[in-house]
Amino acid sequence: MPGPPCGSLLDYKTAKFSVTRNRRVGLLHRLLQLSALGYLLGWVLLLRKGYQERDTAPRVAVVTKVKGAAVAEAAGRRLWDAADLTWPPQGENVLFLVTHFIATVQQAQGTCPESPSVLDGMCAEDADCPMGNPVVHGIKTGKCLMFNATHSTCEIYGWCPVENSTLPRKPLLAEAENFTLFIKNTVHFTKFNFSKCNTLQTSDPNYFKSCTYDPVFNPSCPVFRVRDMVEAAGQNFADLALLGGSIRVLIEWNCDLDHPATQCQPQYSFSLQDMRYNFRTASYYWGSQRQLYRNLLKLYGIRFDLSVHGQAGKFSIIPTAVSCGTSIAFFGAATMVCDLVLLYLDAKADLYWKEKFEEVRRGPHGREEVLK
Amino acid sequence: MPGPPCGSLLDYKTAKFSVTRNRRVGLLHRLLQLSALGYLLGWVLLLRKGYQERDTAPRVAVVTKVKGAAVAEAAGRRLWDAADLTWPPQGENVLFLVTHFIATVQQAQGTCPESPSVLDGMCAEDADCPMGNPVVHGIKTGKCLMFNATHSTCEIYGWCPVENSTLPRKPLLAEAENFTLFIKNTVHFTKFNFSKCNTLQTSDPNYFKSCTYDPVFNPSCPVFRVRDMVEAAGQNFADLALLGGSIRVLIEWNCDLDHPATQCQPQYSFSLQDMRYNFRTASYYWGSQRQLYRNLLKLYGIRFDLSVHGQAGKFSIIPTAVSCGTSIAFFGAATMVCDLVLLYLDAKADLYWKEKFEEVRRGPHGREEVLK
Amino acid sequence: MPGPPCGSLLDYKTAKFSVTRNRRVGLLHRLLQLSALGYLLGWVLLLRKGYQERDTAPRVAVVTKVKGAAVAEAAGRRLWDAADLTWPPQGENVLFLVTHFIATVQQAQGTCPESPSVLDGMCAEDADCPMGNPVVHGIKTGKCLMFNATHSTCEIYGWCPVENSTLPRKPLLAEAENFTLFIKNTVHFTKFNFSKCNTLQTSDPNYFKSCTYDPVFNPSCPVFRVRDMVEAAGQNFADLALLGGSIRVLIEWNCDLDHPATQCQPQYSFSLQDMRYNFRTASYYWGSQRQLYRNLLKLYGIRFDLSVHGQAGKFSIIPTAVSCGTSIAFFGAATMVCDLVLLYLDAKADLYWKEKFEEVRRGPHGREEVLK
Repeated sequence: MPGPPCGSLLDYKTAKFSVTRNRRVGLLHRLLQLSALGYLLGWVLLLRKGYQERDTAPRVAVVTKVKGAAVAEAAGRRLWDAADLTWPPQGENVLFLVTHFIATVQQAQGTCPESPSVLDGMCAEDADCPMGNPVVHGIKTGKCLMFNATHSTCEIYGWCPVENSTLPRKPLLAEAENFTLFIKNTVHFTKFNFSKCNTLQTSDPNYFKSCTYDPVFNPSCPVFRVRDMVEAAGQNFADLALLGGSIRVLIEWNCDLDHPATQCQPQYSFSLQDMRYNFRTASYYWGSQRQLYRNLLKLYGIRFDLSVHGQAGKFSIIPTAVSCGTSIAFFGAATMVCDLVLLYLDAKADLYWKEKFEEVRRGPHGREEVLK
Repeated sequence: MPGPPCGSLLDYKTAKFSVTRNRRVGLLHRLLQLSALGYLLGWVLLLRKGYQERDTAPRVAVVTKVKGAAVAEAAGRRLWDAADLTWPPQGENVLFLVTHFIATVQQAQGTCPESPSVLDGMCAEDADCPMGNPVVHGIKTGKCLMFNATHSTCEIYGWCPVENSTLPRKPLLAEAENFTLFIKNTVHFTKFNFSKCNTLQTSDPNYFKSCTYDPVFNPSCPVFRVRDMVEAAGQNFADLALLGGSIRVLIEWNCDLDHPATQCQPQYSFSLQDMRYNFRTASYYWGSQRQLYRNLLKLYGIRFDLSVHGQAGKFSIIPTAVSCGTSIAFFGAATMVCDLVLLYLDAKADLYWKEKFEEVRRGPHGREEVLK
Repeated sequence: MPGPPCGSLLDYKTAKFSVTRNRRVGLLHRLLQLSALGYLLGWVLLLRKGYQERDTAPRVAVVTKVKGAAVAEAAGRRLWDAADLTWPPQGENVLFLVTHFIATVQQAQGTCPESPSVLDGMCAEDADCPMGNPVVHGIKTGKCLMFNATHSTCEIYGWCPVENSTLPRKPLLAEAENFTLFIKNTVHFTKFNFSKCNTLQTSDPNYFKSCTYDPVFNPSCPVFRVRDMVEAAGQNFADLALLGGSIRVLIEWNCDLDHPATQCQPQYSFSLQDMRYNFRTASYYWGSQRQLYRNLLKLYGIRFDLSVHGQAGKFSIIPTAVSCGTSIAFFGAATMVCDLVLLYLDAKADLYWKEKFEEVRRGPHGREEVLK
């Protein structure tokens, strides 16, 4: 090292300060330092838990199972069980429970009048039905037919007869409200190698066969009655069952792993995602004269979208260091602000300026010297 | 406090500085400070929007619906509608539209010659077909049979007859290009409790029944023509329809919530994920002699993988503080660099060294005193 | 600027320090500085790669295909291929392979005795079966019937006959262990515009038709034997096949894009997620007298949950700056700690205090002056 006359690596150099009896700036400085300390302790460490390492992307697994049976009075007395009403049959993140349907049985390829509910299909004479034009249920053949006593519609080529689009006023499967949905959910926080399942908190193996979830009295039972879920989403089951709907089931795991693992429990919440939900599905079969038929079902029902979110935190030295590090910067900023006030705004800024900045001036010998 | 003679909590202590008239180091210092300021203002605040809290993991919901009808000329004139051609019937994140298929009807368990397209199944004599060996479509029975005039293949036990693997040159359902895909998509940014749907920007309820997406003229209509999507992914529909393919539909929400919510609009983009996509599905039925039959379908088509990404930002005091805090560290670094230049590289480093570091030396009385 | 007498923007101001020959504090200071440097170089830059920008949310696409054939000896000799045994037929993130099943064929709506395995359905007399009460397979009609020589059960209205819940001891489709699962997986790191697929590392087009994954000898072949996967998850195939189970297939991409792209390879790992997995599915058909029948299948099998995780890092100037910036704060903290030791704990704190803090006092003229 060129400079120091008797330099040594182990000399300790401490910054020199000027002490001023300026109470206002002193007070300001202490206040700013207190704010920085309050920010560090209150916000960063207590509220944001800045001393914890966080894992916000747990690996989750969901298995669901629907149970129940409902009697529909539609086409003769009929009993439907969960295998009839849920779709897809395997329980995954999205689950559909049929509450209502329009069945159009034994459709075959051929010609028939379009449904009068299709605006483009209405006609008064053949000229209204240009041949080859596509319409909702098929392709126009060029003829105008009587659909019923009051309506005439274009003849189409397609799956015939066409679907009847008038929906009965009452959901056919209103009893689906008593079906239950069992949600088995596992989270795994890889950063902490911590796993938890929402079904392993009891020693009684039959508990999950008999319990029903209740937010107050039974918050750890993962068996949900369909009606309760719909109502928790602020809807009326009968209304939703008629035209279908989509409900989000949100499972949230908020775990502080510095506390005992038993406190790491999921929170369930339900919200309406969409009114009106339906889709069509068809099954095919061959008739006696080797003609292909299909049964078309327009299914209305409640779609449950399950989503699992989770975060876990655990004390770790690195985030603690980073949180403290960034807060230290604010202590520096406090000093900077006070210096600015002292040097530019104070009445005696002149004096403080001289005291703070000792000048090194060029002396008579053409080199800088300390100005005293 | 032991040390200070007349210490008071409200005294303000300001660091003492030596002022040097060293223009080069002064210039360097100002330049470094300007860079740090430029970094803070330009990059951190303007470009990266460091003053905003961000939510990059919105909760999304997607519902899709396919509409259209196509005429296939394969087995007699046949009209196919969306219920025939889409799979799974419910609209979710992944959607498959059939464009081509190989149907193998009325397969039953039995023995028949293996397909000549299977290399392991070719034979010249019975010895080429060791009994019990598995091959693609079943298990060899030990015989070698004439498949047709030119090929001999091993007899197998399995579902017979085996699937014919030669594919017609023309996609059977080429008209599927005019099908439309309606994508209803909702995002919810939980941090800001802000939700938006891509279908609620109009007051006309029939708008979504008649519009078609166009990146320039109609960017907010969520009804996409299949052919347009394939072309936006840089592919030719006819080519893709023949052997199938997989297309990623990316919906991106980039919302600056400091601006009006109407500016928060999704961007759609399409890209080819994979050429060649097919799968087999079978349906089963019992024949007259209580024998089980199946119809095997090898379906080629376009698989649409929908993925929704989003991020939103909103002004918040904490990220602003952190952004400024980290930038302040760079001001400190600027001073450090200049000190190093001054003390080690400058010609008059000696003088600056003495001036900067005032020494406390052990005096004659065995204790440290200020060296003057 | 009001204060400085001959202030100039280009004067360089350097902080004044007092040099003390206090070896203990000096040593402490150097040690703390070395720790901060070690933290910066060792942890932040080397281990955590703090100089890299990271992308932890790649866009992934997964396509799977199952191949194989199995002979079941259940109802006559029967051969099952992949189209019979996998569900859903399209390969996606979740895949189910049937290993065992209970088939209840030709169920029709009617009355029949409940299964004796249902506790609520056991009875001794009609009074044990209150009419209208729901039980697992239907609704009680009020009669008590002989089910077999040893058991009496309530008569129910529902799908009859009811499912037989005793499971054969041997999985019917034990040969499914030799099925193979082909996993095609693409990751795209949007931040770096970097894509990679796990199947494009060879020039031989038939490689993937013949290879089988092995963690040691063949780690880059994405064709997995079902039995190998089950064993890698620590399970016995025969046990899992009997009652079903769920296995997580984890594909991890850990890419350092500062290295050549060929080193960016996926890691596969397998773990048991759940024992016992089954679901029911039904298919419907009309009989000769236009009565609806269904075939109910209770399917046991192995569910594979594929999940892809990935992260990539690449050198970037911003994270480097931030990493260094936060570390600089620790250098400041080192000085702070040493100052506290020097001023409050050292035997000669008094002297250091005076030296460090030069006081500005109110002089006789009512204004602050430097106290010398």
